[in-house]
Amino acid sequence: MSLTTPRPATDAWAAGHGDVSAETLERIDRWWRAANYLSVGQIYLLANPLLTTPLDVDDVKPRLLGHWGTTPGLNFLYAHLNRAIAERQQSTIFITGPGHGGPGLVASAYLDGTYSEIYPAITEDTEGLRRLFRQFSFPGGIPSHVAPETPGSIHEGGELGYALSHAYGAAFDNPDLLVAAVVGDGEAETGPLATSWHSNKFVHPAQDGVVLPILHLNGYKIANPTVLARIDDDELVALMRGYGHEPHVFVAGFDDESHTEIHRRFATMVDTVLDEIAEIKARAASGDVDRPRWPMIVFRTPKGWTGPDYIDGKKTTGSWRAHQVPLANARDTPEHLEVLDQWLRSYRPDELFDDEGRIAADIRELAPTGELRMSANPHANGGQLLKDLRLPDFREYGVDVPVPGSGMTEAPKVLGQWLTDVIRQNPDNFRIFGPDETASNRLQAVYDATDKQWNAEFEGPEVDDHLARAGRVMEMLSEHQCQGWLEGYLLTGRHGLFNCYEAFIHIVDSMFNQHAKWLKVTDEIPWRRPIASLNYLLSSHVWRQDHNGFSHQDPGFIDHVVNKKAEIVRVYLPPDTNTLLSTYDHCLRSKQYVNVVVAGKQPAPDFLTMDQAVAHCTRGLGIWDWAGTETEGEEPDVVLGCAGDVPTLEVLAAADILRREIPKLKVRVVNVVDLMRMQDAKEHPHGLSDSDFDTIFTPDKPVIFAYHGYPWLIHRLTYRRTGHSNIHVRGYKEEGTTTTPFDMVMLNDLDRYHLVIDVIDRVPGLRTSRASLRQRMVDSRLAARQYTRLHGEDIPEVRDWVWPEAAAAGLGQDVDANAATGGDNE
Amino acid sequence: MSLTTPRPATDAWAAGHGDVSAETLERIDRWWRAANYLSVGQIYLLANPLLTTPLDVDDVKPRLLGHWGTTPGLNFLYAHLNRAIAERQQSTIFITGPGHGGPGLVASAYLDGTYSEIYPAITEDTEGLRRLFRQFSFPGGIPSHVAPETPGSIHEGGELGYALSHAYGAAFDNPDLLVAAVVGDGEAETGPLATSWHSNKFVHPAQDGVVLPILHLNGYKIANPTVLARIDDDELVALMRGYGHEPHVFVAGFDDESHTEIHRRFATMVDTVLDEIAEIKARAASGDVDRPRWPMIVFRTPKGWTGPDYIDGKKTTGSWRAHQVPLANARDTPEHLEVLDQWLRSYRPDELFDDEGRIAADIRELAPTGELRMSANPHANGGQLLKDLRLPDFREYGVDVPVPGSGMTEAPKVLGQWLTDVIRQNPDNFRIFGPDETASNRLQAVYDATDKQWNAEFEGPEVDDHLARAGRVMEMLSEHQCQGWLEGYLLTGRHGLFNCYEAFIHIVDSMFNQHAKWLKVTDEIPWRRPIASLNYLLSSHVWRQDHNGFSHQDPGFIDHVVNKKAEIVRVYLPPDTNTLLSTYDHCLRSKQYVNVVVAGKQPAPDFLTMDQAVAHCTRGLGIWDWAGTETEGEEPDVVLGCAGDVPTLEVLAAADILRREIPKLKVRVVNVVDLMRMQDAKEHPHGLSDSDFDTIFTPDKPVIFAYHGYPWLIHRLTYRRTGHSNIHVRGYKEEGTTTTPFDMVMLNDLDRYHLVIDVIDRVPGLRTSRASLRQRMVDSRLAARQYTRLHGEDIPEVRDWVWPEAAAAGLGQDVDANAATGGDNE
Repeated sequence: MSLTTPRPATDAWAAGHGDVSAETLERIDRWWRAANYLSVGQIYLLANPLLTTPLDVDDVKPRLLGHWGTTPGLNFLYAHLNRAIAERQQSTIFITGPGHGGPGLVASAYLDGTYSEIYPAITEDTEGLRRLFRQFSFPGGIPSHVAPETPGSIHEGGELGYALSHAYGAAFDNPDLLVAAVVGDGEAETGPLATSWHSNKFVHPAQDGVVLPILHLNGYKIANPTVLARIDDDELVALMRGYGHEPHVFVAGFDDESHTEIHRRFATMVDTVLDEIAEIKARAASGDVDRPRWPMIVFRTPKGWTGPDYIDGKKTTGSWRAHQVPLANARDTPEHLEVLDQWLRSYRPDELFDDEGRIAADIRELAPTGELRMSANPHANGGQLLKDLRLPDFREYGVDVPVPGSGMTEAPKVLGQWLTDVIRQNPDNFRIFGPDETASNRLQAVYDATDKQWNAEFEGPEVDDHLARAGRVMEMLSEHQCQGWLEGYLLTGRHGLFNCYEAFIHIVDSMFNQHAKWLKVTDEIPWRRPIASLNYLLSSHVWRQDHNGFSHQDPGFIDHVVNKKAEIVRVYLPPDTNTLLSTYDHCLRSKQYVNVVVAGKQPAPDFLTMDQAVAHCTRGLGIWDWAGTETEGEEPDVVLGCAGDVPTLEVLAAADILRREIPKLKVRVVNVVDLMRMQDAKEHPHGLSDSDFDTIFTPDKPVIFAYHGYPWLIHRLTYRRTGHSNIHVRGYKEEGTTTTPFDMVMLNDLDRYHLVIDVIDRVPGLRTSRASLRQRMVDSRLAARQYTRLHGEDIPEVRDWVWPEAAAAGLGQDVDANAATGGDNE
Repeated sequence: MSLTTPRPATDAWAAGHGDVSAETLERIDRWWRAANYLSVGQIYLLANPLLTTPLDVDDVKPRLLGHWGTTPGLNFLYAHLNRAIAERQQSTIFITGPGHGGPGLVASAYLDGTYSEIYPAITEDTEGLRRLFRQFSFPGGIPSHVAPETPGSIHEGGELGYALSHAYGAAFDNPDLLVAAVVGDGEAETGPLATSWHSNKFVHPAQDGVVLPILHLNGYKIANPTVLARIDDDELVALMRGYGHEPHVFVAGFDDESHTEIHRRFATMVDTVLDEIAEIKARAASGDVDRPRWPMIVFRTPKGWTGPDYIDGKKTTGSWRAHQVPLANARDTPEHLEVLDQWLRSYRPDELFDDEGRIAADIRELAPTGELRMSANPHANGGQLLKDLRLPDFREYGVDVPVPGSGMTEAPKVLGQWLTDVIRQNPDNFRIFGPDETASNRLQAVYDATDKQWNAEFEGPEVDDHLARAGRVMEMLSEHQCQGWLEGYLLTGRHGLFNCYEAFIHIVDSMFNQHAKWLKVTDEIPWRRPIASLNYLLSSHVWRQDHNGFSHQDPGFIDHVVNKKAEIVRVYLPPDTNTLLSTYDHCLRSKQYVNVVVAGKQPAPDFLTMDQAVAHCTRGLGIWDWAGTETEGEEPDVVLGCAGDVPTLEVLAAADILRREIPKLKVRVVNVVDLMRMQDAKEHPHGLSDSDFDTIFTPDKPVIFAYHGYPWLIHRLTYRRTGHSNIHVRGYKEEGTTTTPFDMVMLNDLDRYHLVIDVIDRVPGLRTSRASLRQRMVDSRLAARQYTRLHGEDIPEVRDWVWPEAAAAGLGQDVDANAATGGDNE
């Protein structure tokens, strides 16, 4: 059956199965042995894949790279899930928390046939087996971890900690999907994983799918026992209950219990658990959507289960020594080669594969077929299921800008109005994620159309603000969770955005890395279909942390992002409301990118009409003729560049001073929305050609560039440009903090007065001829600072400044509205 | 009594107190009212601090910035702890997880007298009160969060999640210290906090201090309820038991129970809990060091407790609306001003302060005296207690380097031998932290002197490798925990280092930010004494992720670090063993820095004798005469620069090719250890002057620079240098992965052959005259790649290459040792 045709919810979750037959148990065991054999083969063998001759030194890889320890457990779980999925026809994906168990997942995909379908060179015969083994963690081959190359995976085997967040992200809005999420007990020690158990308070029992966490307690990490394997069962069970789960504890492999008996016990447990889930689903379908105690499995086995017990007299299976490659010297030590040979033969490959190397039919038959195979489930190749968003025309949501500088708008608030209709038109494949700040970030309009999804306790409307069992906004005070949920949601073919404080988006630096790498690699894998971009909205930014101060100031996420492949990353700094709308429309239409949008939430003037905004965003940067004092046909004397809303405001105020004070000075104002335009076209697909850059910024005139973030990023992006040595950048400098907006820009020398000083200092001749203006600028700064220290707010001439055209039209800012606004809402 | 004189352990923890007298309960309540009054005053008032006249609009600050919601709970806890500390004479520090409750901590420090001692302008009279109120979150004043400026704090009120990690870091090796750690229920949702509860498995009941976690369930975040406040008590208690604690649940403020009764109940609970701790400590002192179930307190109160219940008909106290400034329009709305007036008067300030504004003597007397005051405890100003490490002479641990390129050493292994003696000589104030990789990172020698501290279950020597109840190495698979513990340890005046995979140190980017900002600010606070530097050792770096591949590759932590203030950050890339020793000796002696040291763990040749290494590290960079082909008195034709061990090796191999192939070419080889030397002396204290830079790199010759990380960082550091346009950088490019070392450098064009091609392309004349050599270099690359694809390891001419002098002396690398080594150990 196709998974794209959802079954009616009431019928979706089958229950009530009887005993598993002896024949099926035998088949499970044969699958497990085959998967283990293929896993060991991948780690060690270059040739002789069926061991038709005694293992020879040259059959073994010269560099042994990979991880055995977690693999047999993963293979065991995959085998058992296959049995249950086939019986229940239950659409299921598998999240491999211990992603370094790569060989296991490749083995399973090979056993169920997917691997050869996707990679035709890896045939189902002896030669195919040889290639399968050889390619693993081999130059030109496949990674040793679960990776984009691995069929059925949405979860990179890199940094640990996100298995459950990804799993829940996949489950949201997939009511018929089961997500089996294996959590390694090493991974379970990470912070992100430790809090992600609470995801069960955010999943809707009817409208979302089901996550089945399986905590694989194999007891050891690289060199240590794991914490959760070394607390007593009472504590562990209490912990899982405390997390809101109903734990089922399974222990196997520590005594001489037969594998048949182990399989029987585990198959029964799987059925019990799936029946419990079916029961919860049935209750939910009939309207009882109170948070259930979802079952989870504690799966305690020896690490490296079925591997050599002792090597060189040292305990290996059931210890940290099984983590990686237990027989690292198999090529140099004949006894180790012998152990490896015995180990491989212990799986009795001759019973599993025929003489041509084909897997026995009964093993294959354990797995479900078609898209029910976990390795072929389309949810794990989300681009296959991706539908473009229905996007309302953002132009209709824009603000009127009769003259530049009119109005005083909280740009994200307007964006929120557009997003409200995005939500209305896309009720089941778009979500907004954020730690606790969607309203603080001024997107509160979305609550006209939706709520925050919440399945912990309710206390009533007096205190529960737009909380509901189902909703499009996901808020938990964990940036890791927000990012992990969103990634899981995107990777399974849906859309979303993550709104966050700029400073604290660094919390997910490392997660961003992993996702960017995933996108980079999937771009090169033909069978992986493009997914929707990961969109950030950072509207509580470095310049307006009036409430919060220095600890909340860091614009460096942009720097971090631009280290990744240019094909993947985009950074936008819309200067006003209409440009923000145009930018975000573009972001929600895009695929395979990470889009970082930084746009302040404080009331600020609007500069561009919607038509101008669209043109400006399409170009990515441009000359603002109306702001400069150029003469057609002549070169400017100086260029004032800006990127970011606060820097743009200061540049315009500086241009205003210059136009009044030095009317003959030919000033060009350039605003940059798409930061990547600053870079060379050879370095970034959005990059401007050198000649275009020279045309806009001039090859030889002074450029005073006011930038939102750390100033050196602009230098880094432009160091190859002709006029680079003339570019002088003002930006954030880690100077400390202050509690009023203008004092803050002054502290970092980004203020209008300082920009005018920069112009005087850099345009030839002005320093002496305009010494008195320069001194007045210095005095203005001192006066502004003094006023602020005295009155606790910014000096009126700054606070109430409006662009002259708007002032003339009586369309300046609404000062009262401004004064009433504090800083960030946190 | 002085805390620097530890009491004998058996006597340290007093127990068995009787009932708290009515007089004391009254005093606690008066303290609480005073602290709440001072907190509200700080948030709202500019003047009229004692409300001697009806509150006027001009008494209220024009911009209201701060957070009320968490503050009364913090004040309550502080008051009760004061009572217990004074009675038991128990050295205690207070960790404010909800750090935005800044006004509360300032209020408490003012009440116990510390504040005026440290800040004499804030006197204990009406004028002092006015200044205290005015300075809070005011231009030129103090931050609204708990900050370095706050007496008694080691925990910045910035990013949330590290309260418990910091608390345990403070407790390690402070057997007599109690760390009361308030965890906010918002913070409790973060990943780092969720796993940090498990710290109790890593603390030694006799040799370490005690952490008392107090989970403050005030129920709400900025706009949402908190998860832990919305699960039932059974689940919450199970969760805390699962974390290994004995929870004591306290609920207050939800009905009309009298404050006296509430104080009585809580005082009794505090005594019960402290008695339990005393009992555990007594058991531990008598030898029972099995992990106890440490008590913790669940403290459930309304958010904004004692504030206005409703504002404008909306529930405020006991809801998210109390989070920040409940009466944001107090200046514009007369009714709000009236509510504020009543609210302030509800604390009856006239009963708390005399007519001169002096706090009533009985209130002050609730607090302990001297250094027992939590705000004056020297552990919270760790520099006061800091003792320099006793460092063995690193020169004695170096390797012999008879000629450059001899030997084949795992540099961190040698560092480990020195660290072993550092541990021996500093048994109680130096620890090593790492997620699970101290041995993998080749520091295993330290286990000759110590063990990994572990207080979960043991299973015996066969599987427990160097685990012990007490030890100097702290390993938990959470970079957040490692960083948080280390920060807490350093901030309380001790020393340490954090070893980690280079890629995953990004997990703590945001924590690094907070710590760097803390150091920057404390540099400017005279009463804060300098603390030991935070030292990173990243020895599993981007170039050798043979086991792990692309997901484990990211050298961008350096980029992240150099965004912070130059005064704080140092980055070192020692190219071999002796330079690593010299570098680390320097790091462990330094104060107030963050030192990032990147040094690979794979076997690599040694280049410098110890004397040369010391000179080279002291200079920070230098010309390696022995490697170049310059002629004294003449300018070089080209400069080969390198920073990092792998780039240095490739540059030397390229220099070797050039010397053989174009013997007349005058090549200069420059190695950079201290990356900050590349920057301008005006930008960084370690920066090289322009003239020195020109002398070394020449103002006009081509510079081919092979760099460990992202290439543009070198451009960013050098864009102002005279010869910058001649600098061509090779570095890591996010190209993907491969499983052999040379294939990896080739993939990023950092290999020797490509560097020779770069030289040919950039030195005038060579491109035509050396076309055939150029072609051979291209062919060598192809041959190398082909060999690798075929054999799975690097081509012997590369793998076995040694620097010619070493080869001539028969002191080249031990190829067998090299072949036996896989990649990283994870």
